[in-house]
Amino acid sequence: MDKPQIGVIGMAVMGKNLALNIESRGYTVALYNRTGSKTERVVEDHPDKNLVPSYSIADFVASLETPRRIILMIKAGAPTDGMIKQLLPHLDKGDVLIDGGNTFFEETVRRNNELDESGINFIGMGVSGGEKGALEGPSLMPGGQKSAYELVEPILKKIAAKAEDGTPCVTYIGPNGAGHYVKMVHNGIEYGDMELISESYNLLRNVLGIEVDEIAAIFKEWNQGELDSYLMLITAEILTRKDDLGSGKPIVDVILDRAGNKGTGKWSSQSALELGVPQSLITESVYSRYISALKDERVAASKSLTGPDFAIADSDKKALIEKIRQALYFSKIMSYAQGFEQMRVASEHHNWNLKYDELAMIWREGCIIRAQFLQKITDAFNKQPDLKNLMLDPYFKQITDKYQAAVRDIAALAIKAGVPAPGFTAAITYFDQYRAAVLPANIIQAQRDYFGAHTYERTDKEGTFHYEWYHEE
Amino acid sequence: MDKPQIGVIGMAVMGKNLALNIESRGYTVALYNRTGSKTERVVEDHPDKNLVPSYSIADFVASLETPRRIILMIKAGAPTDGMIKQLLPHLDKGDVLIDGGNTFFEETVRRNNELDESGINFIGMGVSGGEKGALEGPSLMPGGQKSAYELVEPILKKIAAKAEDGTPCVTYIGPNGAGHYVKMVHNGIEYGDMELISESYNLLRNVLGIEVDEIAAIFKEWNQGELDSYLMLITAEILTRKDDLGSGKPIVDVILDRAGNKGTGKWSSQSALELGVPQSLITESVYSRYISALKDERVAASKSLTGPDFAIADSDKKALIEKIRQALYFSKIMSYAQGFEQMRVASEHHNWNLKYDELAMIWREGCIIRAQFLQKITDAFNKQPDLKNLMLDPYFKQITDKYQAAVRDIAALAIKAGVPAPGFTAAITYFDQYRAAVLPANIIQAQRDYFGAHTYERTDKEGTFHYEWYHEE
Repeated sequence: MDKPQIGVIGMAVMGKNLALNIESRGYTVALYNRTGSKTERVVEDHPDKNLVPSYSIADFVASLETPRRIILMIKAGAPTDGMIKQLLPHLDKGDVLIDGGNTFFEETVRRNNELDESGINFIGMGVSGGEKGALEGPSLMPGGQKSAYELVEPILKKIAAKAEDGTPCVTYIGPNGAGHYVKMVHNGIEYGDMELISESYNLLRNVLGIEVDEIAAIFKEWNQGELDSYLMLITAEILTRKDDLGSGKPIVDVILDRAGNKGTGKWSSQSALELGVPQSLITESVYSRYISALKDERVAASKSLTGPDFAIADSDKKALIEKIRQALYFSKIMSYAQGFEQMRVASEHHNWNLKYDELAMIWREGCIIRAQFLQKITDAFNKQPDLKNLMLDPYFKQITDKYQAAVRDIAALAIKAGVPAPGFTAAITYFDQYRAAVLPANIIQAQRDYFGAHTYERTDKEGTFHYEWYHEE
Repeated sequence: MDKPQIGVIGMAVMGKNLALNIESRGYTVALYNRTGSKTERVVEDHPDKNLVPSYSIADFVASLETPRRIILMIKAGAPTDGMIKQLLPHLDKGDVLIDGGNTFFEETVRRNNELDESGINFIGMGVSGGEKGALEGPSLMPGGQKSAYELVEPILKKIAAKAEDGTPCVTYIGPNGAGHYVKMVHNGIEYGDMELISESYNLLRNVLGIEVDEIAAIFKEWNQGELDSYLMLITAEILTRKDDLGSGKPIVDVILDRAGNKGTGKWSSQSALELGVPQSLITESVYSRYISALKDERVAASKSLTGPDFAIADSDKKALIEKIRQALYFSKIMSYAQGFEQMRVASEHHNWNLKYDELAMIWREGCIIRAQFLQKITDAFNKQPDLKNLMLDPYFKQITDKYQAAVRDIAALAIKAGVPAPGFTAAITYFDQYRAAVLPANIIQAQRDYFGAHTYERTDKEGTFHYEWYHEE
């Protein structure tokens, strides 16, 4: 066996799968885990693989080719700091540490700065694709020193997912926290996609009265067209599955409607709020999960609070199904428009120089939001790198022209029917706000000047003004 | 003159007005400002008042009765820390420092803890009502040591606004950061109220085609009923005013539609996200201001992105005006429901033991969101201190029963007309989510279990489960 060209710390499923992925591309991989028995088991389970286990940090580091390349696949936060502290005395200048965890980008910025002072390279790398992606090819979003990225680029290109045209789903994202930031927004967008699919399901099921297996067929069909995506595909698949505990029901009918979250969607919204970016669709998706968690309160409220009487005509069903499809695609575009807007503002704020076409490109495969539609985003930013908003691109503009009537009908229908569709309503509202030459924020500025003397700007003159509200005319 | 019973640091308009307010209630007030000339001017401008200026921190502190009571009315953040650092060597155990600035509550928690160790009391006090409120009677939200509150209670009760029944608009909010937290949510609610009024104006003006002076009359009328509030009142007043630079237009028509913000609405939404509270209406109001700020982008987009053709019949106008009124009241209730929910969760999280009826009570006068409607909230929590959500109270439930049809119509109308109404749609969506016994979060949990093995809960059994998605049946 060669001296390992790379090491992986953390033998939980993500770390183990990433190590096996790397090994499968012709590398020897050093392994370490805090609890040695886990490392032992990985090696025992894969006796014919080029895996080199170590049972101390010193041995692990010593086993590696220099400059050393080490991927941390451990819990974000304090455990990551603890592991870096243990590693540091054994590392040399020029070594490359890669944090592949779900780390908040500000922590990555801090670690990158701190380690840079001692000459250690630090890459914060978003890894998307779940367990399966880690093993078979994830989408990778590495950010840190460019020169450090170049030291690991050949490996990352080999282990990453490949898009249809053969391009590996990895690229240098930008300095310090850029990779983890982009991964955070990716996850926010993932929340949005999931919310929109769940709203479509809810409308089909509870307004149109369509059965689960028929919705599966509808989603499968949608997945053949412009909505083609991994999440659409798996949802269609999920809807065909029966309860594995034998109730005979579709599995979705026994799954409790209380959505969990691991915080990245929340971070994404908090950051948008911090940066002044209107990112309503992802935020509504986060809130939607929060309210779903109040199951007991909701059940209690459902017995006391009344809703509307509402029914649709059977003859309208077919047209409504197509309208929901259009509403879903329109809303998805708005969600991505907001996500890319957020990355643009973050990039300017942090001097990351993000390449939006490349971001869309590396999301085409491997990651949870993978979809053919991302090619359209790549094309849009390719043609116009300084595109202000996705909906101004000719392809997307043409979709908004064609589909806005449908999303208006469906959002209005949901509201009249008493079936919540926060994603759809946020989408059309954002569209209408963005294309409004005039918004009623003049009223807000007048109020602020009235009660707080906050001053106002004028439509006809430069400068700031204050009105003498308290002097009656 | 007596020895000053209290001192105010910071002679900008809020500090000056608060000092004059205190003096007017029969106290002698010590004054200090970093730049002495400002202090001098205040004293010169009010020669017959019991004001004792000092031009050094040492003199200022020495001039005060003990235990000393000092209100800081200075810039939040580093300036506050700097001033505390300067004061500390001159203070004695048992002295009371009050920060009346717009401070982020976590800073107040930190300062309260740090100062408590040296025996200095620290109160973070929300002050609402703007310049005029500070002078004539603000709503005050003090949080910190209870014993310290008692040392200043008589003064605060005298300077606070008085509700119709004579109750002063001040109460002990809770430990450490509770006062600034409640002020932050107050400001978030203020964002929501302003957004909803601006949306109502926009619909009346741009969907119903009503002129500004007629909208002023409509708002004035609304302000006589259940919508009676300071913000409604001043908006009606604002709409009657003409441009003071002589254009002849209503002043609102020359005010640029780009809304500013000072961050407290943003903080409120970020905290809701952190605590897991669905607080969509305030958040949409924050995003609404952000998107208003993109004036140039909007004007450019308005030339390229098309909207719907839409017109309403003249004969529908009168009914629609009343529906907008009902939608506004309904939406306002949802916004307060979310705000109080946020305070409940924050209170549990921080062990603040907030008294919700008292919070509503001290907002009845003095502050920007003052409204008779707050009496209804006081009554609701008075009857049921553990009320889970405002909309479950009989009074508010009855309103949602009666007004939900109107808000559904208006939200749908706005969407069809292409006029954004994010507050109204967030309100009805929240209502429909909260009263939904079943939400489509089962789909989200199935997806999460599919791609990330995140497990799911069941409707029929306790525990967490994982489905073997990858084994085809």
